[in-house]
Amino acid sequence: MKLTIKDIQQAHKRIAPHIHCTPILQSQLLNKMMGCELFFKAENFQKIGAFKARGACNAVFSMDDASLHKGVVTHSSGNHGAALAWAASLRGADCTVVMPENAPAVKKAAVAGYGATIQLCEPTMVAREAAITTLVEQYGYTLVHPFDADQIMAGQGTAAVELLQQIESEVDIVMAPVGGGGLIGGTGIAVKALSNAQVIGAEPEQAKDAWLGFTTGQRLAEYSPNTIADGLRATVGVRPFAAITNTVDDILLCSEERIVEAMRLIWTRLKVIIEPSCAVPLAAIMDQPEQFRGKRVAIILTGGNVDLDALPW
Amino acid sequence: MKLTIKDIQQAHKRIAPHIHCTPILQSQLLNKMMGCELFFKAENFQKIGAFKARGACNAVFSMDDASLHKGVVTHSSGNHGAALAWAASLRGADCTVVMPENAPAVKKAAVAGYGATIQLCEPTMVAREAAITTLVEQYGYTLVHPFDADQIMAGQGTAAVELLQQIESEVDIVMAPVGGGGLIGGTGIAVKALSNAQVIGAEPEQAKDAWLGFTTGQRLAEYSPNTIADGLRATVGVRPFAAITNTVDDILLCSEERIVEAMRLIWTRLKVIIEPSCAVPLAAIMDQPEQFRGKRVAIILTGGNVDLDALPW
Repeated sequence: MKLTIKDIQQAHKRIAPHIHCTPILQSQLLNKMMGCELFFKAENFQKIGAFKARGACNAVFSMDDASLHKGVVTHSSGNHGAALAWAASLRGADCTVVMPENAPAVKKAAVAGYGATIQLCEPTMVAREAAITTLVEQYGYTLVHPFDADQIMAGQGTAAVELLQQIESEVDIVMAPVGGGGLIGGTGIAVKALSNAQVIGAEPEQAKDAWLGFTTGQRLAEYSPNTIADGLRATVGVRPFAAITNTVDDILLCSEERIVEAMRLIWTRLKVIIEPSCAVPLAAIMDQPEQFRGKRVAIILTGGNVDLDALPW
Repeated sequence: MKLTIKDIQQAHKRIAPHIHCTPILQSQLLNKMMGCELFFKAENFQKIGAFKARGACNAVFSMDDASLHKGVVTHSSGNHGAALAWAASLRGADCTVVMPENAPAVKKAAVAGYGATIQLCEPTMVAREAAITTLVEQYGYTLVHPFDADQIMAGQGTAAVELLQQIESEVDIVMAPVGGGGLIGGTGIAVKALSNAQVIGAEPEQAKDAWLGFTTGQRLAEYSPNTIADGLRATVGVRPFAAITNTVDDILLCSEERIVEAMRLIWTRLKVIIEPSCAVPLAAIMDQPEQFRGKRVAIILTGGNVDLDALPW
């Protein structure tokens, strides 16, 4: 299956009864500071506090009853685990989330709060995948991957479908941060099909595997990120990389300092709580303001699940 | 002049082109935790980051050109100074804000950012008022009081007019925090005229001058508050006290610990930045949950101008 706008539109119909159509936020002062008109799609107000609710909901509501009632499983130290737990609970299905032992207590509590079972493992990718394989073989669970899956990408692409409807006249650029690539992949497909806007990904300089892949045409299978933007520490998946190659116009980088500065600016000016990952597109604009000057730029604010006891300032 | 709903409705027409109709926020999880249905009117998204924009805008746009162009003046260590500076700038009028020397740099920057002149004074009420008197006499400035003025109360009351329109079916209770009383006074008049809802004010136990006045029928002219809710350190004014006496059903108190807990809960669950003052109504609900059980309760979130370097946790 090659993902198309039809899949994303179907996904949108499928999940619309369960998700929030999140608002678009604006700040005249931010616009002035940045020299462009910014539209922030506030997915921090989404169910479970992040856009990940969209993909997980689409995946769960695409499954047939027989598979679903055997249960679903994923591995996640972040928002996707909570999203799958939430989506599974809507259909009364069992959900197991494999989490590293050292995951923050607050993330474990979120997953448990939606009624999922947590299985702890050593904090390595090998241990995570081994645990998943065992669970799939033993219980017939269906793996719902955090990003490298068509139904997930289709779900994440629905945020862009909404924002293009919500913003009255055409935007010039749509931006999203790049982690595993599910969001930017879905966004690219949606935006290119529905508008003439450019699609620009943003990535921390210290987690630039997508940028390296985009620049060389060769996806990196392994990469060690080291960024404060904890939602972007994944390496871009195979399917997202194909979508990026086909639909994304550019990937821009930014420094860690800029991410913190941009995060604080959004907190202060938009008065919303966002994760460091969400600040990456604005940080990229701050580092490369010329190409945005005078443009109408939509940015997807991906999530708001932040540890208030460990703020970066 | 005795303030009526007509004044508030006229104020709403007058200021609507300049202010935001701020959204209503909800959280199913918060509703579950509190045992009631909560509707948060997000005035932290208002111009200058607080509802104070409403009153100041109404006052400035109610003035005739001759008076206005002599200039306006107020004293404020908080949001009203920024609000008046902003409103004056919309009509091209001069604005002077008398601020205590020890006001936070960020507050001074906000006032200066809207083009107002700052006049520093010693950090006492006496010094503030002396400075104002001199400026009024010397330059013919018009004093725009932060809360003890009909046009200010009328402006603040417009938030309640909006929220009653925005929430589809009737609410049972409308709540606002009580500082100088401009907001709760305007809210009381609006809500009683337009609905059958109860109006409940909320005040920190450690700044309970309104509660004492409400309980004894006698306004306190002097009181020394000591609360983290910096927006509520004023003593209720004469006109607001009359409005409270006529329209408010009850004033509830809450502890400082609850204010911090409620503030954090709103940050975490609603994903919005609010000042400690905004958390006071939710804190009062947490301290006295019985009388809210099963009710539909609207709360005005008053502002989001917080010093991110001095959070209370």
